[in-house]
Parts: sequence; C-alpha cells; structure tokens
Amino acid sequence: MKKSSEKLPSRKLRSLETRKKLLAAGREQFIESGFHKTTIAQIIKKANTGYGTAYVHFKGKDDLLMQLMEEVMDRFYEIAELPFKPQSKQEAYDIIEKQASLFLEMANEERSMMQVFEEAIRLSDDVNRKWKDTRERFIKRIAQDIAYSQAHGLARTDVDHHLVARGWFFANEMYLWEIVKNEYGFTVEEIAHNLTAVYTGGIYG
Amino acid sequence: MKKSSEKLPSRKLRSLETRKKLLAAGREQFIESGFHKTTIAQIIKKANTGYGTAYVHFKGKDDLLMQLMEEVMDRFYEIAELPFKPQSKQEAYDIIEKQASLFLEMANEERSMMQVFEEAIRLSDDVNRKWKDTRERFIKRIAQDIAYSQAHGLARTDVDHHLVARGWFFANEMYLWEIVKNEYGFTVEEIAHNLTAVYTGGIYG
Repeated sequence: MKKSSEKLPSRKLRSLETRKKLLAAGREQFIESGFHKTTIAQIIKKANTGYGTAYVHFKGKDDLLMQLMEEVMDRFYEIAELPFKPQSKQEAYDIIEKQASLFLEMANEERSMMQVFEEAIRLSDDVNRKWKDTRERFIKRIAQDIAYSQAHGLARTDVDHHLVARGWFFANEMYLWEIVKNEYGFTVEEIAHNLTAVYTGGIYG
Repeated sequence: MKKSSEKLPSRKLRSLETRKKLLAAGREQFIESGFHKTTIAQIIKKANTGYGTAYVHFKGKDDLLMQLMEEVMDRFYEIAELPFKPQSKQEAYDIIEKQASLFLEMANEERSMMQVFEEAIRLSDDVNRKWKDTRERFIKRIAQDIAYSQAHGLARTDVDHHLVARGWFFANEMYLWEIVKNEYGFTVEEIAHNLTAVYTGGIYG
C-alpha cells in the first residue's frame, strides 16, 4: 500500500482533477437541463476543459451519466448489502423494514439526479442496460437473504426465493420512481412500513 | 336499443370501416417496425386510404396507438374487474391467484402489441399518461377488493389498502413487462403462484 504522504505524479493528479471537474459539471448540467437536452459541449464548457481532454475521460454524454450513476448506485448497494443474519422473525422484519426505508429515503435525497437517471433509463439503451444490471445485483442479494431465512427455519420454504425476491424488489423500485417523480402523497415511512408488513407477513408468517 | 336488422347509413358505415382498416394497418405496421420507426404515412399507405380521411379518425401516430391500446386494455380491465366477494380466505386466495395468472397470461398472448406499448410508454408523453391512468384504474379496483376483505374480517386491518394495492400491482406490472420482453425464465403460472402466495399470506395470514 502507498503511504498517504507519497504524492501522485502531477500529471496523474491533474488528470484526476479534470475528471472530477467534468463529473461535477455534468451533474450540474444534467440536473439543469435533463438528460435528453444536455449536450457534451455544454458540460465541457461548464468544466472549462478542452474537447480532447474530456474525451480521454468519457466516451460521451451517456458514458459520463453512467459514471455519475455509479456513485449514487454505490450508496444503494451499501443498503442492499447490509448484514442479514437474523436470529428471529422479528429481527428479520426489523432489518427488512430498515432496508426498505433507507432505499426509499435515498431516492428522496438524491431526487434531482434520480430524475435524470429515470429519463436516461428510458431513452438510452446503454443506461437502461446499466440499470438492469443494478437491479439484478439487488435482487440476487435479496434472494440470498430469503434463502438464509429459509435455511434457518425463519421463512416458509414453499416459495421460490428468486421469484419472491424479484417481486419484492419490483414493488420497492416502482415506489422509488414515484417518490423520485413526487407523484405520490404518502411518506417514505408509511410506504416502507406497509410494504414490509405485507411482504414479511407473507414469507415469515 | 337499435334492432340489429336496422342498417347504419352507408356513409357512417364506410367511415367505421375506414377506421377499422386504419387500426388494423396500424397494428400491423407497429408490430413490424416498432413505435418509434413507424410513420403515419406508412399506416395510411398500408390501409389504402387518403391522408384527409385518416386525419378524420386519428390525430396522428400517438393517437392511433392509444386507440389500439384501449382495445387491449379493455381485456385487462375485464380481469381486474372480476367479481370479488370472497366468503373465506381460501376463496380470496383463489380469486387473486386466478386474476394474477390471467393478467400475466394476457401479456403473454398480446406480447407483440405489448412490446410496442412498452416502447411507446417510454417515448411518448401522451401514451405514458394513458398507461398511468390505466394503472390507477387497476390499483383503485385492487384497493376496493382489499377494503372489502378488511371489512369482512378476512384481511388484516393494520395496513393501508391503497398503499398495499399499489405495491401488489407494481410487482405484477414489472413481471408483466419482463414477460412481454421475454426476459425471464419462469412460467406465468410459477410467477403468479409465488407472487400470490406471499401477497395473500401477508394480508390474509
């Protein structure tokens, strides 16, 4: 491991700073104009870099958006990947409600960028594919958690953990997009509580 | 009510036939080229009518698509609006599993048109709004069914029927789109069975 006092070569450092500037400019421009209307030229101008330099870092608008998406998705993954080793049904319930709340709350906090992602997922095949990969990663983790509960006698075993995990994620995801679009009048807590009550009631009994 | 032997005026009859021809041509062209690539000119040519005549019936491509959507959605509404007056939890369970199966099976049968709708919902604001209205109509009906079960001592009353109805519809809807896009390896019956098991277990106990 490098010592923190050890300096990066200045060229490498400049390159990292340029990348950061471009990401920040992209974020700002996307929030301002939406995905479709934003051009890579606007972002380059805002970041005050050259075209050649910009294309060293990003293949284009879609690519830059996907790297911004990665940052937000990492925060979501942290929630999906919270330790799940419940000793009781009640403990399982508590962890699941907590996860659902954090997931929806995060969408709430990141609303401006999530609105941009929603548009980009609809319009760009590459971004759409990236979102689907993200979804599969989430569902896989949920399926593991269900399988754990089934193996430990906490959850019913007459349902398929993959299919159930998928349905559970879908309900959460759709609510996430409604929260992002400000389309529904309930609070995040009410949504998380009701979803979790039915879901855990359904598999933990 | 008119007697069936009574004839429509021939001008009116011709107009209805033109409309039907345009809808049939639209259906064919949309399935062939997708929503985005289809032009109203292609549809008019396929229907062998004039521009002026076509615009009497449809404001444009989006409008024609929405009228095709209406036909398919009517089949969906029939499923959503099946009588729901269960006398027991088991009866509730059976009706719900049947509805979920019919809903997903319908998507399966109408796959080609549903693929066109999926694209149009992503790309056209008008079509998107229409789908949202459809969704709300479904959810409202499910919420009524839950309220009925709650009022009759069949379902738990500590959950909000609107919120639960929404989550249940969302899980079904997302599976519907996966079936439409051929993206998931399970059968309609397996999906309907597992979704229903968790949902009814969660609210009927």
